[in-house]
Amino acid sequence: MELLKKKILEDGEIHEGNILKVDGFLNHQIDVPFLKELGKEFYNRFKNENVNKILTIESSGIAIAAMTAQEFECPLVFAKKSITKNIAGDIYLTPVESFTHGTTYGVIVSKQFLGKGDRVLIIDDFLAVGNALNGLIEIVKESGADLVGCGAVIEKGYQGGGDRLRKHGIRVESLAVVESMDHENGTIEFRD
Amino acid sequence: MELLKKKILEDGEIHEGNILKVDGFLNHQIDVPFLKELGKEFYNRFKNENVNKILTIESSGIAIAAMTAQEFECPLVFAKKSITKNIAGDIYLTPVESFTHGTTYGVIVSKQFLGKGDRVLIIDDFLAVGNALNGLIEIVKESGADLVGCGAVIEKGYQGGGDRLRKHGIRVESLAVVESMDHENGTIEFRD
Repeated sequence: MELLKKKILEDGEIHEGNILKVDGFLNHQIDVPFLKELGKEFYNRFKNENVNKILTIESSGIAIAAMTAQEFECPLVFAKKSITKNIAGDIYLTPVESFTHGTTYGVIVSKQFLGKGDRVLIIDDFLAVGNALNGLIEIVKESGADLVGCGAVIEKGYQGGGDRLRKHGIRVESLAVVESMDHENGTIEFRD
Repeated sequence: MELLKKKILEDGEIHEGNILKVDGFLNHQIDVPFLKELGKEFYNRFKNENVNKILTIESSGIAIAAMTAQEFECPLVFAKKSITKNIAGDIYLTPVESFTHGTTYGVIVSKQFLGKGDRVLIIDDFLAVGNALNGLIEIVKESGADLVGCGAVIEKGYQGGGDRLRKHGIRVESLAVVESMDHENGTIEFRD
């Protein structure tokens, strides 16, 4: 999506260690009118799939997932991250390893809000190694719902998570795929 | 707001200990088309205040804040909760006591995204004791921005947080104020 690539080049900051900071419009401050356009793009890509539920994970996925759910006129469910194993009620729970923090946390969705008959589109802000997304996919499978596909705003192609999912036959749509970054020159190469 | 009261009566669950669960449309599963109407209501109440920034706190405030920011056509900043005191960069940080969990956490906003000249509307899903809101207000003050007011979807009037803020001259608009609940009869009384 050209609009997004332009925004990343203008507002993104590249830091050492292949870190792309997009705090100014996606992760901390959120450019809501801009995210609305991204939501429309996800809608256009999945509009023939009879999506009736958007699934994401707290926190930074919620705004883009809400903007997407708005286009589909459907509810959004956001999975919660548990640090304690203080489980109560009827829930789906799957462990996810945090690549960034080197810890394991539980991803939780109430059984009340996901199940057979649902056609689920998973939306997240970033797709890198894909651990969080894999956790959400596990939960969708366990619930008996149909997974329509996954949408990520920014995919870090060089971390391979997106391509691994595609190899498993899962439809993954990323609005921008970063293939490489150079923090010294401040350049970003996108996949075509 | 009558539409919201009706929704709370229909979809809310009252549990022992004055607990109101609205997981079905506000806190876990989010009824996005419905929240859009709430965002319009906040806009109508604050539209003459030249709001240029919505501020909320992760996680459950983000969706309603995004829906509100959309009406104002302005950005949204969501404050992050730090558990560790691992502070980096130029940030506003204020400690907040969690009434529910009995712990203290830090509320963090990057200085880059809030400052003099901003006219800030704080939005959150719940207003009870008001600790989280007080933390956000502290940050707005520290940043030199103008606080236009606070908007909460559901205020628990009997916990007094909203009225304490009003006494201090802060404009607080809650779309529904719960005065009392009876979990045995399943009844809720709203403030007029």
